[in-house]
Amino acid sequence: MTTAFDGIGPVGPGRLLIVGAGLIGTSVGLAARAAGYEVFLSDTTADRVDLAASVGAGEPWLPELGPVELAVVAVPPVQVAPVVDELVRSGVAATVTHVSSVQHRPQVEVEILQPNFIGFVGSHPIAGRERSGPHHASADLFRERPWVVCPTSRSSPPAVAAVVALAEGCGAAVRQMAAADHDLVLARLSHAPQLIASALAGSLLGLDRGDVALAGTGLRDTSRIADSDPALWAEIVTANPAAVASALEAALAPLASLQRALASGDAAGELVHSLVERGRAGRGLLAGKHGQAAVRWATVSVVVPDEPGRLARLLADAAADGVNVEDIRVDHSPGQPLGIVELDVAPGMGGRLEAGLEARGWRASASEPSGD
Amino acid sequence: MTTAFDGIGPVGPGRLLIVGAGLIGTSVGLAARAAGYEVFLSDTTADRVDLAASVGAGEPWLPELGPVELAVVAVPPVQVAPVVDELVRSGVAATVTHVSSVQHRPQVEVEILQPNFIGFVGSHPIAGRERSGPHHASADLFRERPWVVCPTSRSSPPAVAAVVALAEGCGAAVRQMAAADHDLVLARLSHAPQLIASALAGSLLGLDRGDVALAGTGLRDTSRIADSDPALWAEIVTANPAAVASALEAALAPLASLQRALASGDAAGELVHSLVERGRAGRGLLAGKHGQAAVRWATVSVVVPDEPGRLARLLADAAADGVNVEDIRVDHSPGQPLGIVELDVAPGMGGRLEAGLEARGWRASASEPSGD
Repeated sequence: MTTAFDGIGPVGPGRLLIVGAGLIGTSVGLAARAAGYEVFLSDTTADRVDLAASVGAGEPWLPELGPVELAVVAVPPVQVAPVVDELVRSGVAATVTHVSSVQHRPQVEVEILQPNFIGFVGSHPIAGRERSGPHHASADLFRERPWVVCPTSRSSPPAVAAVVALAEGCGAAVRQMAAADHDLVLARLSHAPQLIASALAGSLLGLDRGDVALAGTGLRDTSRIADSDPALWAEIVTANPAAVASALEAALAPLASLQRALASGDAAGELVHSLVERGRAGRGLLAGKHGQAAVRWATVSVVVPDEPGRLARLLADAAADGVNVEDIRVDHSPGQPLGIVELDVAPGMGGRLEAGLEARGWRASASEPSGD
Repeated sequence: MTTAFDGIGPVGPGRLLIVGAGLIGTSVGLAARAAGYEVFLSDTTADRVDLAASVGAGEPWLPELGPVELAVVAVPPVQVAPVVDELVRSGVAATVTHVSSVQHRPQVEVEILQPNFIGFVGSHPIAGRERSGPHHASADLFRERPWVVCPTSRSSPPAVAAVVALAEGCGAAVRQMAAADHDLVLARLSHAPQLIASALAGSLLGLDRGDVALAGTGLRDTSRIADSDPALWAEIVTANPAAVASALEAALAPLASLQRALASGDAAGELVHSLVERGRAGRGLLAGKHGQAAVRWATVSVVVPDEPGRLARLLADAAADGVNVEDIRVDHSPGQPLGIVELDVAPGMGGRLEAGLEARGWRASASEPSGD
């Protein structure tokens, strides 16, 4: 195991200062305390420190406590550099990281403000959540999730090691990347998808609720992340403008061509075909479980009455047949007391699960993935 | 209960001819037979009829069998009118419906070809599925799903009643709408979202698999429907061009403005804020379960080892606490042997479920919906 402070301090977790007691800062505090760190909390709003301390994320920070080994800046992207600058000036922390969704701009700003500081290492725990605030914090927020660590050309090896140790202590899977690369990838994987899902959901506002009730599970999946915080996303997107513009352009260009063809009555069949074909290929890139290539599962659809415990009985019956359920989706049908539950299982296992569930009194129907 | 042929034939289900033995046609056959119809199958490809018949969807159609009460045309949108025309000319069916995702163009074409036929009623069972072919058919495909019925100005009341009775016999929830309204609504709820999800997924093709592994559940949800059939969608979209163009325009216009502002370095914070804010409002329109207004659930995140039966035990433990699970999502973390399962429960119940699960040895963390 990598220790946090090889050659420069005690072996193992040390004193950690968290600046910004929001969802991420408080969750880092909870996870770091569980990993053995002594955690202190600071925030411009004293109430948030009190709330974070009350859920067990650490003790309120006082200047007379003296220096810490590591500081985590958990504030919006535009505030990262000024806060880091202040921490460096005060000499309070040997190593400083931050945890925002954008890496390059804060890094450049820190390098301008503190060109000789070798203790700065950006990082980004990728723990998607449509909620915010310390009361939603969780020690498990980072468990098994990626945590990208972005050393600068000036970051010292012990500083990088300290940040990696914190991420691993929080249960995350560390990936090192250059800050600019991180921002390009996250623009594609997170920032542009958020904006596109929001725009799609926003376009429903012209419809009445009765018509929207005709939507299937597809639109509900596609728009789920539209339940996000507007202020947070304004900060993220404006801190990564060029990469987001490029990611939006990549996604929108074929749609704009298609839209023009459809509006002007031109033949559009080839455009649609190629757009959907490329989408299937891109979807195939998305990791399956455990980072393996994506698998197209067999799906067994089951009619489930909306009563407490029925979902549990269904899963128990599936397990009794020895079939491992890989994924599950619940579709509450509009206006009906029943729902359809879709269980994804390994290819070739659909028929066995269907037969087993039917034998136990369920209405089930299996479909294996298409051969293409 | 409405009977199929009030005043013009036998009470209750009669003889049904299905033209086109694909996924939808075969599923209608299975569901109609379960509802008591005598079902006959026809297709330009004899193999498909044999396959559909072999799964129990009906008997192969022979012209000498004489007229049927109702014919269901289950072919791509562009082929609907010629097939209906042929059925009317041959006098084989008193009432003819079709089941394609586009209604207005086939209706206009049928009215041109057969201006005096009062037995035509369009319909669309909304049973989204990323698969096709008779081997994926299911008698439950329409159960509890919406089935839109689109009478024309010429449709006779008995013809409308016959189509409504079939839809209800298949277990669907019937909604009557004008064909043009159906196409506008479906362009917003289904056709444009499909194209947008495909374009988003297609834009991942520039990334390598390792980088794509950093994607969270958000992108996986947003792109799920990108696993669709290119040929099918080319047919649907080109049969509904104006409505799809308008739906794409509604979704894309704010994204295009934002993209321009970001690319040219203009201030974009307000644009992002308003886009995400509108998305939240649109998302709120999406029906919650049973057609009620959408509820923002409390969410309990649980760490679950990837072992057979663990999901079943989790649901059983949740049920033992008397908490009804409203929705469930499984996130297989890239590269890790554990997953995070998110359970949605009624607002206010998150803490109770978290405590109950923790007491049973799970690592769980509740978050209640934001107050806004």
